[in-house]
Order: sequence, then C-alpha cells, then structure tokens
Amino acid sequence: MRTVDMIQKKRDGGELTRQEISALIQGYTQGTIPDYQMSAWAMAVYFQGMTARETADLTLEMAASGEQMDLSSIRGVKVDKHSTGGVGDTVTLVLAPLTAAAGVPVAKMSGRGLGHTGGTIDKLEAIPGFTVELTRDAFIRQVNEHGVAVISQSGNVTPADKKLYGLRDVTATVNSIPLIASSIMSKKIASGADAIVLDVKTGSGAFMKTLEDSVRLAEAMVSIGTEVGRRTVAVITDMEEPLGTAVGNALEVRLAVETLQGRGPKDLEELCLELGSHMLVLGGAADTASTAKEKLKEAIASGAALRKFKEFVAAQGGDPAVGDNPELLPTASRQREVPAAADGYVGHITAEEIGVAAMELGAGRETKESVIDLSVGIRLLKKVGDPVRRGEPLAVLYAKSTEDNAKLDSIQERVRLAYRIQSEAAEPRKLIHAVITKDGVTYR
Amino acid sequence: MRTVDMIQKKRDGGELTRQEISALIQGYTQGTIPDYQMSAWAMAVYFQGMTARETADLTLEMAASGEQMDLSSIRGVKVDKHSTGGVGDTVTLVLAPLTAAAGVPVAKMSGRGLGHTGGTIDKLEAIPGFTVELTRDAFIRQVNEHGVAVISQSGNVTPADKKLYGLRDVTATVNSIPLIASSIMSKKIASGADAIVLDVKTGSGAFMKTLEDSVRLAEAMVSIGTEVGRRTVAVITDMEEPLGTAVGNALEVRLAVETLQGRGPKDLEELCLELGSHMLVLGGAADTASTAKEKLKEAIASGAALRKFKEFVAAQGGDPAVGDNPELLPTASRQREVPAAADGYVGHITAEEIGVAAMELGAGRETKESVIDLSVGIRLLKKVGDPVRRGEPLAVLYAKSTEDNAKLDSIQERVRLAYRIQSEAAEPRKLIHAVITKDGVTYR
Repeated sequence: MRTVDMIQKKRDGGELTRQEISALIQGYTQGTIPDYQMSAWAMAVYFQGMTARETADLTLEMAASGEQMDLSSIRGVKVDKHSTGGVGDTVTLVLAPLTAAAGVPVAKMSGRGLGHTGGTIDKLEAIPGFTVELTRDAFIRQVNEHGVAVISQSGNVTPADKKLYGLRDVTATVNSIPLIASSIMSKKIASGADAIVLDVKTGSGAFMKTLEDSVRLAEAMVSIGTEVGRRTVAVITDMEEPLGTAVGNALEVRLAVETLQGRGPKDLEELCLELGSHMLVLGGAADTASTAKEKLKEAIASGAALRKFKEFVAAQGGDPAVGDNPELLPTASRQREVPAAADGYVGHITAEEIGVAAMELGAGRETKESVIDLSVGIRLLKKVGDPVRRGEPLAVLYAKSTEDNAKLDSIQERVRLAYRIQSEAAEPRKLIHAVITKDGVTYR
Repeated sequence: MRTVDMIQKKRDGGELTRQEISALIQGYTQGTIPDYQMSAWAMAVYFQGMTARETADLTLEMAASGEQMDLSSIRGVKVDKHSTGGVGDTVTLVLAPLTAAAGVPVAKMSGRGLGHTGGTIDKLEAIPGFTVELTRDAFIRQVNEHGVAVISQSGNVTPADKKLYGLRDVTATVNSIPLIASSIMSKKIASGADAIVLDVKTGSGAFMKTLEDSVRLAEAMVSIGTEVGRRTVAVITDMEEPLGTAVGNALEVRLAVETLQGRGPKDLEELCLELGSHMLVLGGAADTASTAKEKLKEAIASGAALRKFKEFVAAQGGDPAVGDNPELLPTASRQREVPAAADGYVGHITAEEIGVAAMELGAGRETKESVIDLSVGIRLLKKVGDPVRRGEPLAVLYAKSTEDNAKLDSIQERVRLAYRIQSEAAEPRKLIHAVITKDGVTYR
C-alpha cells in the first residue's frame, strides 16, 4: 500500500493493519517516508483516533525502532514509574530508594527537564559526584547488588518516537491521546519494564487539564500495556498547585531526603506512598495496596529507605552524606522572599507559572541547549489552604549571585501573581483522583 | 503568529485572518514554511473546512503568487470557461469560436492533459501548424482583431497553487472542497477573467461522484467569484458516460468541427449551447440564457461559428482547411473495432475506463513526461441508450501502426468491459443537472 493510501485510510476513519503501521514507522525512521506525509497522517490521527490495537502496534513499532534494554538478568519483576510531568515532582528521587528498600528492584532510565517541568537526571546531578552515565553491565550489576540504579536515557532509545515527536511539536499534532500514549509507553517498553505505574497529572498545571482527558489518556496507556503484556496501573493525581514545597534541582533533592527521613510535605509523601504501593503490588512484594502502603511507611520509619538512598547515591559515585546533611547540596547564595499582598488564605497556586519562574531563575531549560544552574529554584512556604498575613513570605527565590535585579523583580512578581489569596479557606482538593487498571476506573 | 499556531487554530475550527492566510501562502511559496507544516494544515482544512471569506482570501493569495494576466486592453467582458475534467470533453474547441462569433471575446489560457483526461492545448496541436505559444502582446492583439485566442498556460501562473497541489496529491488532502475550489479559481483569476463559467462534472466518470458533492464544489467556487468580484456561474453536467463520441486529440478536433458544422453529437452540442449561453449573458451579448441559446444556434446554422473557427486557426498559424476537410488532421493508420458481446442496450459506459484506454493507446499522459500521439484514440459508435446486436462494433480504436498486438488486445478488452450491455433500454439521463449562481441553485 502506498503511503498516501495509508494516510487516506486513516483520514477516512479506517483501521491500519500491523503491517501498515510497521511500514509507516520504519519508512519514517529510515527516511523513505518524508515528514510531510507523516505530519498529514498525524493530523488524520488527531481527528480520527486509533483503535487500541493500532495504538499498541504503533507503540511496539516505536519501541523496536532503536535500542531495547534487556533487563532479564535482573532478578524480580522490574516495575517502572512514569509521570506525565508536573512542577515540583521529585517523586522518583523518593520512590526509587523507597520501593527498592521494600524489595522491588528499580532499574530506571530517566530524562532531563525541558520548559517549566524538571527532569530526574538533572536533579540527581545536583548531588556532588553523582554520575548518571553507567555502562549497561554496570547498570545491571548495580541493580542486582543494591536494588536500585537510575541512569540517563540512552540517545538511541525509540528514535522513531523522537523523530515523530519533533514533527508533532511543530505541526499542532501533539495533543492526540493515542499519539501521547504510544509515545510514553514505547519508551517504557524499550527501557525493559515488566510492569508500569503511571502518574497521570490532571489540572491547570498539567498537560491534561480536565479529569476526563486525564482518564482517557490513562485508559489508553493501560490498554497498550494490556495489549503488549505489561501489567500497567495509572493513577490520576492533582496538579492544580505544584507538588511539595520545592521547585529546582538541589532544592528538590533536599526535599526528597526530608521525605525519606519522614518529614516531607504531606502531598509529596501521600503521592509516593500511593504510587509506591502499586509498584510493590505489581512487583510481587505485597498482595494488596494497603499492605504495600504499610510496608512503605515502615521502610521510612525504620530508616531503611534513607539508608537505601545513601547506598544508591554511593553506588553511583555521589556523596552519601547528603542523606544526613542536605546542606552539602549546592545552595544559591542569593535569596529573596515573595511577600503576600493581602491577608487571607491561599486559594490557588498556578503551577505552570511557578515552573516558568524557576526556569527563569535558571533551574530549567528554555531550549534543549540551555545551561542550567542546579542550585537555584523556589521554595514554597505556603500552599493551598494555608492562612497568610499581608507581608508574610509566600515563597523564597533562590537566585544566582550574578542575577540581574530587574529580572529578579519580574520573577518575584510572577511568583506573587501565581498565588491567589482569597478571604475564605478553600475546600481542600483531592490529591488522588482515580486509579485505572485493566479492569476499569476507580474514582477516589 | 507562529505557523504551528495557525495550524492549531484551523485544527480547532477557527477562522484564519487574511493576514494569516497571506503569511501561510507566501511563506510556503518562498520556502520559509516547510512542506510538513503545510500538509498538516491541509489535513486540518480537510476536516474543518474554510469559511467563504477564508477560501476567497486563499484564492486571491494564490492568484497573486505568480504572474497575473492583465486583459484590460481587450475590449469587452472577458468570460472564461473551466471544466473540472471529463473524458471526451472537447467543449472548449467548440465554444471558443462559437461564443466569439456571437460577440463575446475569448482570451483563454489552457492546459495539457494528464492521466485519463485530455487537455485543450494538446488537442489544438493536432491541427497542422497551430502554435499554442504567443507573446502576451500577440495574444491580446489577436483577441482584439479576431475575438479569440487560446494559448498554453504560462509556467509561472499561480506557483503557490502548483506547489500546494503537488503536496496535497501525496498527502491525501486533494479531496477538500475549499482547497479544490480555491485551486481552480486562483488560476482563472490570475488568467485575467472578468467573469467565469464553470462546468462541474458529476457522476462516476467525474472527480465529484455525487450530485451533492458537485453542487457543494460549485457553490464554493461561485462564492469565491462573488467574494472577489468576478461574476461566476456554475453548471453541473453529467459524466456517467464520456461526452460526445471521440476520445483522443485529432479525433476530438474533428468532432468539434462537426459540431460547429451543426452535425455534432447531441450531448456535446447541448452542453456547448448551455455553457455558451451563460458566457453570452455574463459577457453582455444577450439578456437571457434563452435568447443567448438562439444566438448561438444561429451562429452555427449560418456558418458564422465555423468561419470563426477557421479564422482563429489561421491566426495561430494553423491550417484553416481542417474546418472543411477534417481528413487533413493526423489519423492513426491502424483501426480495430470493439464488438458487442451480446444483444441488448448500452446501459452504461465507464468514462474513466475509456479515458484510460485512450491513454494506453498513446492519446494521454501517464506522467507529465509521457510523449503522446495526437492521431490515436477511440471513437464511440454506441452511447448509452443505443440498441446493439452481438458482434456489432461498439467503438473503434485508433492505434499507432507500431502498436503491440497483445497490448491492443488488452485495450480492446478494457473498452469492451467499459460498456455495460443490458436487456432493457435505460431511462435517458439528464445532461444538465443544475445551474448555480450567487442567488442559489436551480435544479433542472
């Protein structure tokens, strides 16, 4: 079948066969199918969607387009975790040692941050000495010895997805559920995961703004997992305000350590326990989510989780002392408070604006080429529901010593405006909205 | 606005401004907007359509992308005619001298054939000595002196349309009413027409298979004409069987001469009178379509139309004697009849198959680079409704003397299969289905 006929078939609402999807993805990756046909196809998919079978085939084809991690020499069920991206999301730094301490091996490939969202690899690099590059052998050996390793995603994982995503980004075809779902899942499958826990963010600070869309995306990903034989659970979590109280690389490491010490912010801890409990169940380390949660709480309370964190950091060349003395992390010398303009209660914090402000301070990348500063960022002193007095600090900016004053003023203003102060305390929002498994959706 | 935002606006059903459409078309023509963004935009247009205003803006922008004919130095209202493409459509060869004889100047740029449909320029070249290349000055002088000139479309008319059409052809975005309508109308406007008569074919042999789609396309084009101040009338005409009784260049010239002599096939004559009557009304040479028709019939009966044909041919260097002796046209030496396989009535003739058979004989181009033979083609001896006896010839193939026998057998079989012979005479089909003006649709 000619490429134009496959585009037309999708345009007219038809279902492409496995062979047709293979021809499209292989042709596109090899360059025999040009960008202009692929973008027209992607727009047709935007309007016509894809069946569960087509989406699974697309996922497998993209996973097979490059290097595929073989984790079979690691003992146990390898459970991966993925977040659709939020602000202040330092969950992986907590969860990797926490679930490893509870008996589930973590062999994770992570990415760097872009735009207003951060990336685990950048955060880990804030730990003095930590290396995110390991050979495949060293990676596998570390997981077998220490139960946990996190490395930077190889450049040759899912090149088809990379090329297609770049094209979608400039042709207004990003926002298609089957294309988003297959993009995420192809990377997880190529990374060698046996089972997958997905954190699908929802709300104004998330890619998916409504609960309905978030559930649709989660269902599409769980359906792919089921089709391709990878047990997958998705949790829909709130992103109406930033997660936790830190945005910025070293600041988030510090918060992760505090959480592993049992004194982290409530929302971050709750989310880690929720996601971790599904990982433990999928990994066979617990029978039910509630026994799993108890196990995780126990790992924190006993200090086992923190010990595992230090063991993990040391194994990858980092200074384990940061687990006891987070002051060893780089700290921006210049700090500036953001005072509240009025008395009242915090009603809302626009997560994206906080993320952009952190990026402007140098914590995040405006483009892939931007150089970041691991020490800068924002600490949130007040979160939604907290009472505030006029003049009281809402947040603290951590800036480079060389930062321009006018720029710092404008960032301060951005953060101030990201906070909505209202006269009445708002109803507390749910953090966990729903859990999606192959058996359906359970709303909380 | 960035290109991706314009694509997204259209994807989400928004209306692009004149400035946005200009930016798109100019950027695309100049190469600053890449094919892959334009094809995604075209697919978004396929699904979301365009408003009348957007379509008119797109048309004007494409018309302005290259050379624009200025026909203002020709006296009178210049009325152009365009057909959406059929098989055996030799209407222009009849209409150009006929309407000129009735007082409406014809200054026409035509194209060559491609695939199963022919082109006026190829047909004119079948006349010994005829040249289709005139300087602009010679072209205008000829129209002012003789009332008629037909030349080959300049290579630099509507380059934006050419580039976009080439892209649509390989991205399954041809079949969009606003894109088809603006493509046709941009060429007519760049060619300098004051008013336009459109022959929109409908039926299995036409690009638009259903009356409904044909009316929608006609309405879109009439709407563009109205928006840009060019009076436009569209006639929906039947293409369930080939028009007339000849397919092939010299054969069609001969049929045009016979029609100008008053002894052409009924359907071809009826269509020429219908289209010509609208041209006369738009050109101010008649008040109503019916007086216009009488005028045209009179021009044929008096011999004025045929004399104008000979004058036109002579003016462009051709041998005017073909107007009296069509035998002077090139004739393929090898002829083969296509006998009926059964007794009965002709129920249907698949126009496209006849067109493809003529192309295979060498009358048409498979690709733009194909070399054609002006003498070959097909004469249809039987048309829909005619009774036939088994063994009686349905058609005659005119082939090159060097034609391969096996190939000729297969072409003969293709033509035989294009005829459906049935036991009962079919209801005669209407030739003219509807007339569309800015005031609406009149069904016949």
